[in-house]
Amino acid sequence: MAVVGVIGGGQLARMMIPAAVALGIELRVLAEAPDASARLAATVVGDYRDVPTVLDFAQGCDAITFDHEHVPQEVLRALTAAGAAVRPGADALLYAQDKLAMRERLAGLGVPQPDWARVDTADDLAGFLADHGGRAVVKTPRGGYDGKGVRVVDDAHAADDWLAAGPVLVEELVRFERELAQLIARRPSGEAVPWPLVETVQRGGVCAEVIAPAPHSTDAVERAAAEIATTVAHGLGVTGVLAVELFQSTDGRVLVNELAMRPHNSGHVTIEGSTTSQFEQHLRAVLDWPLGSTEPRAPWGVMINVFGSLPDDRIAAALGHQPSAKVHAYGKGPRAGRKAGHVTAIGVDLDDVVYRARAAASHFDD
Amino acid sequence: MAVVGVIGGGQLARMMIPAAVALGIELRVLAEAPDASARLAATVVGDYRDVPTVLDFAQGCDAITFDHEHVPQEVLRALTAAGAAVRPGADALLYAQDKLAMRERLAGLGVPQPDWARVDTADDLAGFLADHGGRAVVKTPRGGYDGKGVRVVDDAHAADDWLAAGPVLVEELVRFERELAQLIARRPSGEAVPWPLVETVQRGGVCAEVIAPAPHSTDAVERAAAEIATTVAHGLGVTGVLAVELFQSTDGRVLVNELAMRPHNSGHVTIEGSTTSQFEQHLRAVLDWPLGSTEPRAPWGVMINVFGSLPDDRIAAALGHQPSAKVHAYGKGPRAGRKAGHVTAIGVDLDDVVYRARAAASHFDD
Repeated sequence: MAVVGVIGGGQLARMMIPAAVALGIELRVLAEAPDASARLAATVVGDYRDVPTVLDFAQGCDAITFDHEHVPQEVLRALTAAGAAVRPGADALLYAQDKLAMRERLAGLGVPQPDWARVDTADDLAGFLADHGGRAVVKTPRGGYDGKGVRVVDDAHAADDWLAAGPVLVEELVRFERELAQLIARRPSGEAVPWPLVETVQRGGVCAEVIAPAPHSTDAVERAAAEIATTVAHGLGVTGVLAVELFQSTDGRVLVNELAMRPHNSGHVTIEGSTTSQFEQHLRAVLDWPLGSTEPRAPWGVMINVFGSLPDDRIAAALGHQPSAKVHAYGKGPRAGRKAGHVTAIGVDLDDVVYRARAAASHFDD
Repeated sequence: MAVVGVIGGGQLARMMIPAAVALGIELRVLAEAPDASARLAATVVGDYRDVPTVLDFAQGCDAITFDHEHVPQEVLRALTAAGAAVRPGADALLYAQDKLAMRERLAGLGVPQPDWARVDTADDLAGFLADHGGRAVVKTPRGGYDGKGVRVVDDAHAADDWLAAGPVLVEELVRFERELAQLIARRPSGEAVPWPLVETVQRGGVCAEVIAPAPHSTDAVERAAAEIATTVAHGLGVTGVLAVELFQSTDGRVLVNELAMRPHNSGHVTIEGSTTSQFEQHLRAVLDWPLGSTEPRAPWGVMINVFGSLPDDRIAAALGHQPSAKVHAYGKGPRAGRKAGHVTAIGVDLDDVVYRARAAASHFDD
């Protein structure tokens, strides 16, 4: 029986459990805390930054993969040195950990992205602002997520606090029509299979809703997105699921916003909507097993994130209201603003699918 | 967070895990052994016939349900007396445990079934044989499954060994065109939702293949099957999934063969093929949550059982050969003839779906 070890016990590790159960894979999770979302599969509770803890956890695993990108490079390299199959590997993961490294590497691969620069001083930032209409986006190279570590600025001193700690990334403020995500899975032996392009709707810097496939996409946009994801997956040697967050700019360009090297919020709709979910595909990919079909199960799928909490009585109310909607609860204690679950609907008519997903999700509104 | 306790750690309990993970239900399993199929969710390893063990296990569970029908009535009644929500309840489960009681009760409900009789002696059996062309089926009232405890006989003394232990059930040998299964779920508050009728193909008394929906069914057959299942579910007060195994006789009758009150092999195709799988529906039903839509996800689904074992290299080969097939491994050690997993394909063309399912399953042939 194949054994996959997952570092991190969040909802992404949790949603790997059903896929592992189906395929007869033993999933082991290194969880941050006993009450982690993926606690059912937790075999160790410990600190993913501690080399001995992680090495010990990895014993007997056929592959090691991740719920998040925060495992330090030194830990990744110690794992590899100890003979673990780390997927994605340290060299690839670097580009999901460090946005400056990512921009430099994608530039080298010729992948379209927003104008960007590394800035070390307020003067550097002033120069970039002057060249880009006086506004730009500043990002900390590391540690940002869900809108954290990101600022839209029009003042060269608006990032002084971050600059005190080191260089930051500045990017043109892309005027975009919408945001897209292109998911692809790649296995070590090289096979790579994309899913259909999806549209992601953000609110307050956080993904609120995903529509699959992205409505009204031209062939050119779909081709551009798939080509970017394929180039990045092979170019960076990604193994497992790669999510490429994209801008579709008002002037028709498709530009890379962010990378994630793990199952991704924009792919939750694949649980019901795809022949092979991102969680199953990720496990197959990290084990170097053949990848599955990503043919849609229905013409349309809509996924809506739920924040805060999903009390049982509201789950029951949502299911009663929308018998075809699927509710996913992440088993987390209530906390305002935190992703606590999601709702998915699939079907043949987009308006109907959106209606059903929103109607079910509305039961979790505060 | 709702807590469901499952008595028995076989593949049915195992396949409840993904549904529980999705809905944020805490699943607890009373397993027979540490290496049980559902070991991931096992919280107790113990004897389901032992009242204190089971009462202890049930503490804190919102509902108690089952992987199999073998829990003794005295244990079920002790659970109920202790205040546990036992679903299905002891009164209903009796009819899945005792085939003589089942025949008597279904006769009382006016449900169509084969001619049958209780026989206490070889003379009784001789009389039944004389009235039914000299051949009949003899069944032990309790403990039979997958062809065990069932004999086709033409000799009045062919059941002497069983008769020495008590009465047996004798049934006419139904000349059937095919076997069918009608699944339905019912919740305590009364809501009952059927799935589409399926055809089951048996080999050696064991289910080999399931086709959903049952091909070429007339409206009359589909209505008869749904009416039988609905009558039995309400009449016996079943909670959770009820599987009614049926004969479609050569003379056009739909007759009850067997009952099971739990998720059933004939319903595994619902994991991919239905908007709500039998495992999700069972959990919703036993918690008295609203039931889900059983609309098919595709026009056709085919499930093929795998016996013996599913080694990793063969799983990978099957997935490589058929990228749209879904493989389910039950995490059991190899044992000849034992159900070890299953393969499912769904799609729009039945011939193609059968081909893909069989092509994937062929990798597990000896």
